Amino acid sequence: MANLTIKDIAKLCGVGTSTVSRAMNDDPGINSETKERILKVVKEFHYVPNNSARNLKVSETNTVGVLVKGRNNSFFQGMYTFIEQELQKIGYDFILKEISYDDNNTMQAVEMVKEQRLKGMIFLGGMIEDLDKIRQHIDIPYVFCTVAVDYNATDCNLVAIDDEKESYRIVDYLIKNGHRKIAIIAGQKGDFAVGRLRLKGYKLALEANGIEYNPGLVAYQRDDLPDYSSANGYAVMKDLLASGEEFTAVFAVSDLTAFGAYKAIYDAGKKIPDDYSVVGFDGIEMTKYMYPALTSVRQPVEEMIMCAVELLAKAINGEDTGRQIFFAGELLEQDSVKDITH
Amino acid sequence: MANLTIKDIAKLCGVGTSTVSRAMNDDPGINSETKERILKVVKEFHYVPNNSARNLKVSETNTVGVLVKGRNNSFFQGMYTFIEQELQKIGYDFILKEISYDDNNTMQAVEMVKEQRLKGMIFLGGMIEDLDKIRQHIDIPYVFCTVAVDYNATDCNLVAIDDEKESYRIVDYLIKNGHRKIAIIAGQKGDFAVGRLRLKGYKLALEANGIEYNPGLVAYQRDDLPDYSSANGYAVMKDLLASGEEFTAVFAVSDLTAFGAYKAIYDAGKKIPDDYSVVGFDGIEMTKYMYPALTSVRQPVEEMIMCAVELLAKAINGEDTGRQIFFAGELLEQDSVKDITH
Repeated sequence: MANLTIKDIAKLCGVGTSTVSRAMNDDPGINSETKERILKVVKEFHYVPNNSARNLKVSETNTVGVLVKGRNNSFFQGMYTFIEQELQKIGYDFILKEISYDDNNTMQAVEMVKEQRLKGMIFLGGMIEDLDKIRQHIDIPYVFCTVAVDYNATDCNLVAIDDEKESYRIVDYLIKNGHRKIAIIAGQKGDFAVGRLRLKGYKLALEANGIEYNPGLVAYQRDDLPDYSSANGYAVMKDLLASGEEFTAVFAVSDLTAFGAYKAIYDAGKKIPDDYSVVGFDGIEMTKYMYPALTSVRQPVEEMIMCAVELLAKAINGEDTGRQIFFAGELLEQDSVKDITH
Repeated sequence: MANLTIKDIAKLCGVGTSTVSRAMNDDPGINSETKERILKVVKEFHYVPNNSARNLKVSETNTVGVLVKGRNNSFFQGMYTFIEQELQKIGYDFILKEISYDDNNTMQAVEMVKEQRLKGMIFLGGMIEDLDKIRQHIDIPYVFCTVAVDYNATDCNLVAIDDEKESYRIVDYLIKNGHRKIAIIAGQKGDFAVGRLRLKGYKLALEANGIEYNPGLVAYQRDDLPDYSSANGYAVMKDLLASGEEFTAVFAVSDLTAFGAYKAIYDAGKKIPDDYSVVGFDGIEMTKYMYPALTSVRQPVEEMIMCAVELLAKAINGEDTGRQIFFAGELLEQDSVKDITH
């Protein structure tokens, strides 16, 4: 950022501040040679006129921070283009920061805000445990999007799907297709974010259909592999297949995890969906090209991003805050589930 | 950016500038109540002391722009974490901009530099046709990484693999495995960036092995689908299979394209590698979980990014410019090629 004032520019050019101002405003009353000389200096020193500085207000960047809990995650990565497009419409750029599941997003957010003079923040993924700290330390507008947060915190902007309900939906779909021995590739054991909600939806769907919950069919992702990754889905599915537990279907809590699970099933010489039906979660683009195409719950990512950016823009303009908007997921019926009702 | 000076802060607090300075430097000689009051104002107005402002120098942001030619491309997306890590080591953040293959990266870069006061730029992907315009309009240090650019432009920092040579390598590998009827899923017809180089490597490998070039086996990606995407690989492979041309192997110029091609082959009721051997390019993580795991050429992404950031840091420090560094690719032998020599 430049701390140059119009006075500095005037001093450098050997003219008065009003001349600098006229040069920059393309005032016809100024000698063209002088104008050119001034504009060269303006350019060289990246000077940007800042009217509000006179009123002792801080001039504003047009940058929004996007803090993503999860590295190399196709689900979030598929969002960046939309985020960019939507922010561009309202004149903003963004700075992206992907952090790992172990990082504390509150601390990272505080740091980003401090360093970057951001206009606003969008949080993607993970959960917010210490909402009070965020309230206390982050004094710019922010929106949580696909973040697990205390849903009673009605002073926060939140855009999400109901993870519990959507998990219920897809597990119920498996049951309607005749499956009763259904395994789940859950989040890591310490996942109190969406992993916990999706596991809960799974349990509720079993319960509602009179199926006893079998802890032996819950495969938590490993702590030593990236969360929600294909690597984790592969490793965990391999162990599950070797465990001797019987099951006809698997619910993987993300599409990428399901992608890894496919590979483990094929490696074991089994077929999808003939031997095992598999469903995922998120509904990302690549599910179409998996073989067979993965049945999943699609999150309406475009709409969610549009909504998050709109809420952020309103908050930046001081218009509105504290909206909690839940989008419905969509059952993406593809080819990975076998109907075994007959 | 703040245009507040220490004088403004002093005025706001009703103290002298030296008191503000002492408060900020945690000088023990200042009354703790005064200090607290000053620091509150400093925080409130995001004031950052800027010594160089006094010397009429522009203070510097710690932001590097990363301009990516290609949206939602896993190859580039897999790089962002490394870019972030490497930049962080030298104290920089980055602003990411993904543009489509139709966008002109020179114009986009000029705009980014103008708006963001960047300290440097990293270009990823695509090609630079108008290097002179970049030289003329971008007055901050920049590095081309995995970009097709005039390799004789020795005043530019460039980090790349030799796309022609690496394509040659993998097509030659197919030939060594007994394949002589080898199709290629090439870039779009207008792709004069890496797509052109990879097609050239394919032709050279055929020629060196005495195999006649058959234009009927060249499937250009479609212009109406995203370049290097699974959707494009799927569509093009489908047409190729329906064309009646005979072939035993396919070289897809990116792993994602190969992922789509797999699906088209399976949809046709064929097997990989029994009916068709398939190879890709890039060597991204997901190739491991494809079934069968995709044989590819791995680009040493981590090393390339480390190198690009190092070159950029040197250029920012005025130490060095104009290095052109080529990394060797690595043949990633996995399970998608059948040896048909016997």
